[in-house]
Amino acid sequence: MESRSLSTITPLLKAVEWRGDHVQLLDQTLLPQRRVYRRIHDLEEMVEAIRNLRVRGAPLIAVAAAYALALEAHKWEKVPLQEAKEKLLKGIRRLASARPTAVNLFHFLSKAEETVRKARSPEQLSQTLLRMAQDLEEAEENRCQRIGEMGAALVPSGARILTICNTGVLATPGIGTALGVIYRAHQEGKVARVYALETRPLLQGARLTAFELQAHGVPVTLIPDSAAGFLLQRGEVDLVVVGADRIAANGDTANKIGTYTLAVLANRAGVPFYVAAPSSTFDLSLPSGKMIPIEERGEEEVIRVRECPVAPEGVEVWNPAFDITPGELVSAFITEHGIISPPFSKERFQQGGIR
Amino acid sequence: MESRSLSTITPLLKAVEWRGDHVQLLDQTLLPQRRVYRRIHDLEEMVEAIRNLRVRGAPLIAVAAAYALALEAHKWEKVPLQEAKEKLLKGIRRLASARPTAVNLFHFLSKAEETVRKARSPEQLSQTLLRMAQDLEEAEENRCQRIGEMGAALVPSGARILTICNTGVLATPGIGTALGVIYRAHQEGKVARVYALETRPLLQGARLTAFELQAHGVPVTLIPDSAAGFLLQRGEVDLVVVGADRIAANGDTANKIGTYTLAVLANRAGVPFYVAAPSSTFDLSLPSGKMIPIEERGEEEVIRVRECPVAPEGVEVWNPAFDITPGELVSAFITEHGIISPPFSKERFQQGGIR
Repeated sequence: MESRSLSTITPLLKAVEWRGDHVQLLDQTLLPQRRVYRRIHDLEEMVEAIRNLRVRGAPLIAVAAAYALALEAHKWEKVPLQEAKEKLLKGIRRLASARPTAVNLFHFLSKAEETVRKARSPEQLSQTLLRMAQDLEEAEENRCQRIGEMGAALVPSGARILTICNTGVLATPGIGTALGVIYRAHQEGKVARVYALETRPLLQGARLTAFELQAHGVPVTLIPDSAAGFLLQRGEVDLVVVGADRIAANGDTANKIGTYTLAVLANRAGVPFYVAAPSSTFDLSLPSGKMIPIEERGEEEVIRVRECPVAPEGVEVWNPAFDITPGELVSAFITEHGIISPPFSKERFQQGGIR
Repeated sequence: MESRSLSTITPLLKAVEWRGDHVQLLDQTLLPQRRVYRRIHDLEEMVEAIRNLRVRGAPLIAVAAAYALALEAHKWEKVPLQEAKEKLLKGIRRLASARPTAVNLFHFLSKAEETVRKARSPEQLSQTLLRMAQDLEEAEENRCQRIGEMGAALVPSGARILTICNTGVLATPGIGTALGVIYRAHQEGKVARVYALETRPLLQGARLTAFELQAHGVPVTLIPDSAAGFLLQRGEVDLVVVGADRIAANGDTANKIGTYTLAVLANRAGVPFYVAAPSSTFDLSLPSGKMIPIEERGEEEVIRVRECPVAPEGVEVWNPAFDITPGELVSAFITEHGIISPPFSKERFQQGGIR
């Protein structure tokens, strides 16, 4: 099996990039047919981009928001401190309103708010927020690398791996979480095939995961979401690995709609079900998943695929973006600190950046 | 709740209709955006229509094929008997090659083959085959009616019902199987809401079920296939009812891909999971579902939705059209003979048309 250096592959699909006076963003809503980069010059543009999934993936949303805040801070460098603080606190609230489920964004915004409140000058604040964004990007990149290494150890030789949504170089600033595990295991020559769920309604599996795995030379087969059960039942999957948007202290995991279903099916088939996520995705303030806010998105995403209508006009739609997988269905959590199991506590993440 | 007469609703969406010298077919690939009727004048046109899902649904495929054979027999009325028989046996083989999983087609073709072999004159054969087609249509229509009555008795008041694919007036010559149960329960004022799975890849749930339930005034909410698990987990479904393409003697059921997943999820949620099907869908020659041939369809259906591309070109795809739900996951089978459970035997269907 071909072996590639991950470091030379990653930049090929750099989804978010700081460019000094703007953020360059690969518009993920247009992939894979069109590769369009957008220049984001201010915070409101980033709020729009996050809300409309031009940039997505729990770790990457936080990085994109961090740079948006740095842009905003730069804008208010020359105004009185109090005014700059007010502008930035407002910006933080705007970013916090963009999407509710992934916790990485809120972890960062909470730290940023503290920084804003303690700031002594607008210029220093601007520099600090930019450094915080760069630090976050680097930290998440390193976490992905570690997650990949940790997770690959769980992958048997010749593995057939099933995954949902997109958790790779388009969802993180690094090689990814679940896909990070896959990239690393592929580098180690252990991946026979990846089954990518297309992941309706927005088809991140078909549009993004199939695309980036293809681009990196990983053998991939695309399947409809509804075919996962049959595939598992037939014994054609050795392990399932998925990412996460928020993990409660008891292991309950919010992730892309359909993840709970996969966990139940894997469980029935006796196939290990892993969640790969950095410490920044854990929310230890929540004892269980019951309190995780689940974003419900518009009907348009279901009744239309790209521009093509697929349902009668005016039909009622229920379109939850995430679901909650009970911790008991997760075989193990793959983090940068190692392979862990719930209940989770602060002590177990002392090296990490979680609150 | 509004009460309607089913008999006045059904003709609104007559999917297959015998017109003396042709079959009028509502092209289901274009619904719901366009309502196009096609005139089928010969058997090969019908083979194409079945293969490309212009007409679909296990009971309706058999009826469409039966009329196609009648058209063919009419064509060979004036040739020598032996030649007519050869043409018709060839036609039967062509029809049998159209789609492999639904058994209703094969039950009919097997009877038709016997009729052809025993025929004494081409004219009489032509008349007999037409009468057989009309009898089949009428029988399936009546079976739907009975299935509806039988099944509605299982539906509690205020029921929230989940279903997959399309099993209604577009899938049968009558009010449908699973949707027949729903129409009847709705008529009895017991249906609070139907959740229709969109049913990738061909979106029969979004395009056909949402459409026909809307047309008949039944409250319907469309959901992505991957949202069914979350909905069941939240306790928002009182029962699941699905159709079938072939049922083995032990209750193993071939039906639209995703049905197995639904059964597992319903089971975990403690929600009854019913299969509604006429006796013509049972295949007692098969002891279990292992021997049911599962049709695998082309990659185009997955990488393109209507005309819109949703995946990278050249990606490998696995696209099974059906899966097998183990009989043990089915709470009960709703047939025209009543509510039954496996193992099934010929004796239990003595009034029915199964072999």
